[in-house]
Amino acid sequence: MIFSIIGGDERMVYLRDMLKSAGHTVRMCGFEKHAGHIPCVSLGDAVFSANCIVLPVPTSKDGKTVFAPLCESDILLKDIVSAADRKTVFFTAGTRIGAATEYDYLAREEFSMLNALPTAEGAIKCAIENTKHTLWGSRCLVIGFGRIGKILCKNLRSFGATVAATYRRAETKALIDAECYECIDSNSLSDTLPSYDIIFNTVPSIMLGDYELSKVKEDALIIELASAPFGVSATAAEKYGIKLITAGGLPAKTAPVTAAKIIFMTINNILREHF
Amino acid sequence: MIFSIIGGDERMVYLRDMLKSAGHTVRMCGFEKHAGHIPCVSLGDAVFSANCIVLPVPTSKDGKTVFAPLCESDILLKDIVSAADRKTVFFTAGTRIGAATEYDYLAREEFSMLNALPTAEGAIKCAIENTKHTLWGSRCLVIGFGRIGKILCKNLRSFGATVAATYRRAETKALIDAECYECIDSNSLSDTLPSYDIIFNTVPSIMLGDYELSKVKEDALIIELASAPFGVSATAAEKYGIKLITAGGLPAKTAPVTAAKIIFMTINNILREHF
Amino acid sequence: MIFSIIGGDERMVYLRDMLKSAGHTVRMCGFEKHAGHIPCVSLGDAVFSANCIVLPVPTSKDGKTVFAPLCESDILLKDIVSAADRKTVFFTAGTRIGAATEYDYLAREEFSMLNALPTAEGAIKCAIENTKHTLWGSRCLVIGFGRIGKILCKNLRSFGATVAATYRRAETKALIDAECYECIDSNSLSDTLPSYDIIFNTVPSIMLGDYELSKVKEDALIIELASAPFGVSATAAEKYGIKLITAGGLPAKTAPVTAAKIIFMTINNILREHF
Amino acid sequence: MIFSIIGGDERMVYLRDMLKSAGHTVRMCGFEKHAGHIPCVSLGDAVFSANCIVLPVPTSKDGKTVFAPLCESDILLKDIVSAADRKTVFFTAGTRIGAATEYDYLAREEFSMLNALPTAEGAIKCAIENTKHTLWGSRCLVIGFGRIGKILCKNLRSFGATVAATYRRAETKALIDAECYECIDSNSLSDTLPSYDIIFNTVPSIMLGDYELSKVKEDALIIELASAPFGVSATAAEKYGIKLITAGGLPAKTAPVTAAKIIFMTINNILREHF
Repeated sequence: MIFSIIGGDERMVYLRDMLKSAGHTVRMCGFEKHAGHIPCVSLGDAVFSANCIVLPVPTSKDGKTVFAPLCESDILLKDIVSAADRKTVFFTAGTRIGAATEYDYLAREEFSMLNALPTAEGAIKCAIENTKHTLWGSRCLVIGFGRIGKILCKNLRSFGATVAATYRRAETKALIDAECYECIDSNSLSDTLPSYDIIFNTVPSIMLGDYELSKVKEDALIIELASAPFGVSATAAEKYGIKLITAGGLPAKTAPVTAAKIIFMTINNILREHF
Repeated sequence: MIFSIIGGDERMVYLRDMLKSAGHTVRMCGFEKHAGHIPCVSLGDAVFSANCIVLPVPTSKDGKTVFAPLCESDILLKDIVSAADRKTVFFTAGTRIGAATEYDYLAREEFSMLNALPTAEGAIKCAIENTKHTLWGSRCLVIGFGRIGKILCKNLRSFGATVAATYRRAETKALIDAECYECIDSNSLSDTLPSYDIIFNTVPSIMLGDYELSKVKEDALIIELASAPFGVSATAAEKYGIKLITAGGLPAKTAPVTAAKIIFMTINNILREHF
Repeated sequence: MIFSIIGGDERMVYLRDMLKSAGHTVRMCGFEKHAGHIPCVSLGDAVFSANCIVLPVPTSKDGKTVFAPLCESDILLKDIVSAADRKTVFFTAGTRIGAATEYDYLAREEFSMLNALPTAEGAIKCAIENTKHTLWGSRCLVIGFGRIGKILCKNLRSFGATVAATYRRAETKALIDAECYECIDSNSLSDTLPSYDIIFNTVPSIMLGDYELSKVKEDALIIELASAPFGVSATAAEKYGIKLITAGGLPAKTAPVTAAKIIFMTINNILREHF
Repeated sequence: MIFSIIGGDERMVYLRDMLKSAGHTVRMCGFEKHAGHIPCVSLGDAVFSANCIVLPVPTSKDGKTVFAPLCESDILLKDIVSAADRKTVFFTAGTRIGAATEYDYLAREEFSMLNALPTAEGAIKCAIENTKHTLWGSRCLVIGFGRIGKILCKNLRSFGATVAATYRRAETKALIDAECYECIDSNSLSDTLPSYDIIFNTVPSIMLGDYELSKVKEDALIIELASAPFGVSATAAEKYGIKLITAGGLPAKTAPVTAAKIIFMTINNILREHF
């Protein structure tokens, strides 16, 4: 098959290599600024005869142009769609582009699940780097017990940290209980806040505001893993002198090869299921 | 509050103690044959003034009478419902009885989740008991990666077994990959079957029939954890001389106190959410 | 090479199979009562032309006769030694027999290390079997943090038990701290005793006497894993009505095939190092 | 008691705080260049009336002067000893200084044991930082299965790496087998070298020379954790274009507070045992 990859960061270059190794023809568009001198084709050539077009993670930040930090000019989503054949299969990430056949790989459960692995590794690295003590013996709170929260809790405990996780629903409480982490009700979070050395937030809605941060130890470290609108008030953290690290997009930063492989696997799964 | 517990096995006696410790009045009905000389009331007294009526796990095996192995006579579901006030809250397990207000605690996610813990412990005990080798160094297959499968895989690996788990969906495959177990497609299960020392089935529909069992090692052990209609053909297992242990109802057998506590917690959650 | 196996239990029959699979000739002596109708040779034939003679675990219980529960008559250690050639290599377990060339495989570090694995599995099985609650959520104490203690603690925690271990020396305390178990000074053991649901003893000298047992919960379970003179006073346990299970010789009971393999590996190591 | 801390890096400042919190008087000597404006006394005052004198890790790099990177001038070991009273207790690390009463805390088992924890965390951080893939799914080799090797293997596996460890003695092989890592004979190391993504060396004598490194994948990462004379040939690594990171002194870099606490605990243990 013929794939075109339009826009994106270094992950897409690794993705190209994986698609090639699997026997596909791959064309790249929008990588002129990449240090590796990637041969690029025009948008028209990229779209024209491709069976599949892969757009990056995220596909767009503004809803109009493709996220293409290595491209010299803007690539408009509508230009891609209008140039494409009805039979072209689009793989997008988080933005519907209005093509006849498009699959959002970001919305796939296996994508999110596996992407939690590099995120957790990046978060652990960040915690080791930004504290003067070991994870071993430290008290950690993980806000949110979803995909990232679960892996993070597991990793932290394996280092010898004491781990607490928050829940809203009885069902999540049971999961946390089953794994024997400390179980904290999101609604009474503030009571236990003074005891933590490191706090990881994975919930994208305000969990630690001014009141909560007033309870956190001054020398605690907070790592924000959620995307906007975030779970930790940066203003309040600054007010109380608490170190807050906003660590977004960790898969691409921590492990671009693995991040590319996860996209590759997800695309393969979609193709297998639908074609 | 006033609770009546009608029918069930020893778990219900522990549940009574927990409800009492929480400050409730508890009446028991249908425990005449219990060795501990449990004071019992008549069905009428049990139903009449109770705020809450707890029926056992399972509530009924035939859809007509309450499961009450310690009772001297049959207790009809319809007699309970007709005697009850409209305001009485029923807690049932797996059988709708047609009361005005009834909650199926068996259907609650936290109940199933936590009940997987005693099930996994019972399964591990069963495996240690019925093999001449250690779990350490053995090759284990867990069919089905649901609540029980996940915990079982984790426990087996912690003993030093090599663990494989089966999947149908890409999403489950991602979960298995994330935990680094061997990933076996349910559709090509038979290829790897000759390599396992112990096989646990958690799927309640036929997974190991005649053909599959013809591939299993003669000295392997198979533990059936699913309920009827089961996942392993008992006839075929016998035909090939493979040891098959049907290990149903493990929570009550392995850990009746914990099993009671899980019912207790689930009932509390339901009460908290609805009243 | 020609091996003779003289005395011992079922493990020795599995050992025979392993030695044969490795290409050796193996003669058995002292297995007349075995249900499998093991072909046996006379003691003279067993000793006469063998290059290596393997005596069982334990080699002797009285210092005079070989431990041979499947033998119809007594086999005297001195008869074996006097019949043997000076060049015959003896593998013994715990008893010096006075041969020209003898190796105590029981004294080998790798033997003890690996034997701790079936012991721990047997202990876990015993705990699951003899309690009405799960290991998950239970409070366990492991007395002694040696080979067995370490593996047991790891296994218990993986089930979700809270685990405490005892130490005498600062160095052992560091090991326990590193693994994040609760650290209990052997000298002030009694203070924490009332809190445990299950206690495992691995120390072969009295650790829980009358005073200590008076502090243990009445419904606790104690599992004695040490050999005589034991660490738990059986008299005091009975006095206080505490369930005490003496679980000796677990490798042979829990996993005779693995136990045989461990002997096999140790003998191989000895041969490799010395010949 | 009166403690004097002479020389060392930031760890010693945290050690001072811990000793003070425990009720001791603490004098500092040789911290003039510290950014925190540490009040310092002269060497004479530091030695004169102190009950205990703590020298840093390492106590000396040249056998003559104290390791004192924050000091403006050289501090001679002999000046300290000659000024000290016979009753003064010295705590040294790795260098005998010839005092009447001196304890080498670096030589204490619990010190080495606990120091392996920050070392392992620093090594993991280094591996995450210097690879483009996750630890999850990577193949790691740990050369040497001592204190650091053991913890590192455990941590790597908990991230989902496939872990191999090397051994020389049968006893170490048993330990590695018991934990179910891949077991590699140090003498035939080179056979498996092409398969690893990350290699950690903990052995302070050449393990990976020119021949071995010629077998390592070009894009592998090697992390040297041993001290001089090191286990990996830097020259050969450069020749083959393999990324080699020499990561010495990790406890002080990764977790100076924990490193100080480990010194503190070890000194306390020595005092408890001897006084």
